[in-house]
Amino acid sequence: MAQEYDLVIVGGGTGGYVAAIRAAQLGLKTAIVEKGQLGGTCLHKGCIPSKALLRSAEVYRQSINALEYGVEISKAELNFKLVQQRKQAIVDQLHSGIKSLMKKGKIDIYHGIGRILGPSIFSPIPGTISVEMENGENEMLLPKNIILATGSKPRTIDGILVDGQKILSSDHALELESLPSSMIIVGGGVIGIEWASMLNDFGVDVTVLEYNSRILPTEDVDISNDMEKQLVKRGIKIFKNAEIITESIDCSEQLTISVNVEGKMQTFTAEKLLLAVGRVGNIQGIGLENTEIEFDENFIKVNDVFQTKEKHIYAIGDVIGGMQLAHIAAHEGKLAVEHIVHGNIHPIHYTNVARCIYSYPEAASIGLTEEQAVKEGLNVKVGKFPFKGIGKALVHGYAEGFVKMIADKETNDLIGVHMIGTHVTDLISEASLAMLLDATPWEIGETIHPHPSLSEAIGEAALAVDGRAIHF
Amino acid sequence: MAQEYDLVIVGGGTGGYVAAIRAAQLGLKTAIVEKGQLGGTCLHKGCIPSKALLRSAEVYRQSINALEYGVEISKAELNFKLVQQRKQAIVDQLHSGIKSLMKKGKIDIYHGIGRILGPSIFSPIPGTISVEMENGENEMLLPKNIILATGSKPRTIDGILVDGQKILSSDHALELESLPSSMIIVGGGVIGIEWASMLNDFGVDVTVLEYNSRILPTEDVDISNDMEKQLVKRGIKIFKNAEIITESIDCSEQLTISVNVEGKMQTFTAEKLLLAVGRVGNIQGIGLENTEIEFDENFIKVNDVFQTKEKHIYAIGDVIGGMQLAHIAAHEGKLAVEHIVHGNIHPIHYTNVARCIYSYPEAASIGLTEEQAVKEGLNVKVGKFPFKGIGKALVHGYAEGFVKMIADKETNDLIGVHMIGTHVTDLISEASLAMLLDATPWEIGETIHPHPSLSEAIGEAALAVDGRAIHF
Repeated sequence: MAQEYDLVIVGGGTGGYVAAIRAAQLGLKTAIVEKGQLGGTCLHKGCIPSKALLRSAEVYRQSINALEYGVEISKAELNFKLVQQRKQAIVDQLHSGIKSLMKKGKIDIYHGIGRILGPSIFSPIPGTISVEMENGENEMLLPKNIILATGSKPRTIDGILVDGQKILSSDHALELESLPSSMIIVGGGVIGIEWASMLNDFGVDVTVLEYNSRILPTEDVDISNDMEKQLVKRGIKIFKNAEIITESIDCSEQLTISVNVEGKMQTFTAEKLLLAVGRVGNIQGIGLENTEIEFDENFIKVNDVFQTKEKHIYAIGDVIGGMQLAHIAAHEGKLAVEHIVHGNIHPIHYTNVARCIYSYPEAASIGLTEEQAVKEGLNVKVGKFPFKGIGKALVHGYAEGFVKMIADKETNDLIGVHMIGTHVTDLISEASLAMLLDATPWEIGETIHPHPSLSEAIGEAALAVDGRAIHF
Repeated sequence: MAQEYDLVIVGGGTGGYVAAIRAAQLGLKTAIVEKGQLGGTCLHKGCIPSKALLRSAEVYRQSINALEYGVEISKAELNFKLVQQRKQAIVDQLHSGIKSLMKKGKIDIYHGIGRILGPSIFSPIPGTISVEMENGENEMLLPKNIILATGSKPRTIDGILVDGQKILSSDHALELESLPSSMIIVGGGVIGIEWASMLNDFGVDVTVLEYNSRILPTEDVDISNDMEKQLVKRGIKIFKNAEIITESIDCSEQLTISVNVEGKMQTFTAEKLLLAVGRVGNIQGIGLENTEIEFDENFIKVNDVFQTKEKHIYAIGDVIGGMQLAHIAAHEGKLAVEHIVHGNIHPIHYTNVARCIYSYPEAASIGLTEEQAVKEGLNVKVGKFPFKGIGKALVHGYAEGFVKMIADKETNDLIGVHMIGTHVTDLISEASLAMLLDATPWEIGETIHPHPSLSEAIGEAALAVDGRAIHF
């Protein structure tokens, strides 16, 4: 017999489970179909495990540099097995937290593969969900509404066999049992740079190959340049305008690959290669073909309230493409539910969502880059303040980087905030609120930032927009 | 011959030198009279050196606990001499930065003791400043306006001889050449708690004696209680309602002191005692008696634009009392200058200035405590979210503490934000901006906080105000 629900969510990752909690709060009878584990990529293969590894990398680095702080350490050695165990313990704890939240919200969980059926004996419109359960049985779910939140998987490149041994995706890298001596990272985007920073801290010889003319190509060019400078200083090798020759890959002994670097052919050798060239939506095998839902090669198409062409079927998170960030997926999930219940929502201004890079140094940004703003014909003014003018950054022991604030010369509107340095992923939320509330640099500059704190750099950058910075 | 100035600032601490920079930016011919060093208490005897020591304490603690992160350390030992050298190097670097800023702003510095003269041959009104220079000479300064920014010094208690050997002020403690084995700290306010946390990390046996019924008595009671719980867990002994019997102090061998703890007499013994019972304004010897300026035992009285009874003489910072925070002094300094130049300013709402405690864990707060709000007759609603529900806190390795948000049930106005936990002194600036912009908890909750980040706790606490938190 088919189980009836107000809402069935296909995919229990961050987008899906947050949507389910919001739905439960709003009184909807809700179920999640999850083929893997609740928490999805973010908890099991993305944000959380990678940040746990990065945190161990930070502690290891600080241990090695402890003498700078007056702490004498005879010998610091990485025990990578313990590093991985710690990572897994954190994931397990959060995983069990999500399971409790599901129980508390009386949200039913179906462990299996969900597929949308077309019009059937159960319903004249597409939307019955057939679940091939882990235990081999089959369940039929009959929801009034559906949210597709099936997430994404690492993108591959034609001609490169990701074997999990010599050639890894980020999924494989997270499960490494021991560290390679050297790693080529193909892709200098967020994921590639976080891995480069972490592996370098762990003592791995790292080479980054980036196809574009700069790493972090979606970030402000000043961030890209400063990040490159700081990573290179730490011994990471970075090649830009680097086109890999897939046919040249040889894994028979050491991994070797030929790369066209700015028109010149070079050969690179390493123990392993990490492919970090983005992620594509999980659109296969979920029954899209049984519906009117539009999709392209990689992603499902939705309108600005997250409805597919089938108005009762929503899609959110990585499977609809865009910035593919967990906090966006979660917010989209809440909004989709609110649209189901209330019929209207405040849409997301994607430009005004913070994006974070958890490398060392960290980077965080929101709004338009200077280049984008100029391209849009805006007349910009820019304030920039270096962390080396901030006492708390010196106290921390790493005072590289800066805060850059971009505003409209005519309207004084805040256009973008771009930061690189210590703890900036914690600092960016002030800029997020500023964006939401249409704050001006003047208002941010008048905000009394506590002393000593890293956030003073935000206040100073805001004052610098109008030439009023104090410590510069 | 008397030197003429638009503005003379007596005291080159944070309030004074920031005022001088603002004055220079606005075109005033400006001088500072400083009897010690530019940067004052904050740079030389307060915020910066204490945070530098706290940072070394953090690195030492993390080294000891490194195995939790997968880092094997055979032995970590504190070299306190190096800790002090690092502290001094940071202070020196910032000191030299301030000197450059003074040069850049063409601000004259008089190294000596400044004293306001009454009506004299130089001026029919009080305000000529006589400077007894370090080099033994005397300079006469004839300013159109004066800002008194003479700062504060540690408060003493009648009957306790602060000898700098067995009984220390925070000034002495910062200059310790070696660590004592045990320390009694009299006073469980901000300074006492920061020292207790730091010394405990350094391996010193710490006892805190607080006269009030709770430590951090000006903070929200939930913060006081949680801080006490966490410090006690680390082995710090805390006694509240503790009245020290000054006559009982015996420094002949080990220091001993009798204390009336909740009506029961107890004797405490330690190698040293730190007196941390607040700070009083430096009002002596600056010539106040030659003017109409009003002052009480400890502080100068000003109106809400920082004018004393002599309208051309302003006073700012610790010497006017209040919260005695460096960022308040700096802001008052800027405002006093702007009042001199423009004749009007946006006054400071002191309740809406963030206050930070840099212990482990950190605490940070802004606005009214719940108790204060209720006392003012406000009908409050409270949202609270624990850091243990935040992935990034687990990743960091310390997930104790919470964010507490207080709002007005009727108007939805934000009344106060109180945090205790990891890096909260970096997180509070979002709340500062929220206060300045009259943001509601709804707006803070709708702000997309990046995942994973500690700032998610602020978003969740904001949602919790209306029962809409996701991860709870």
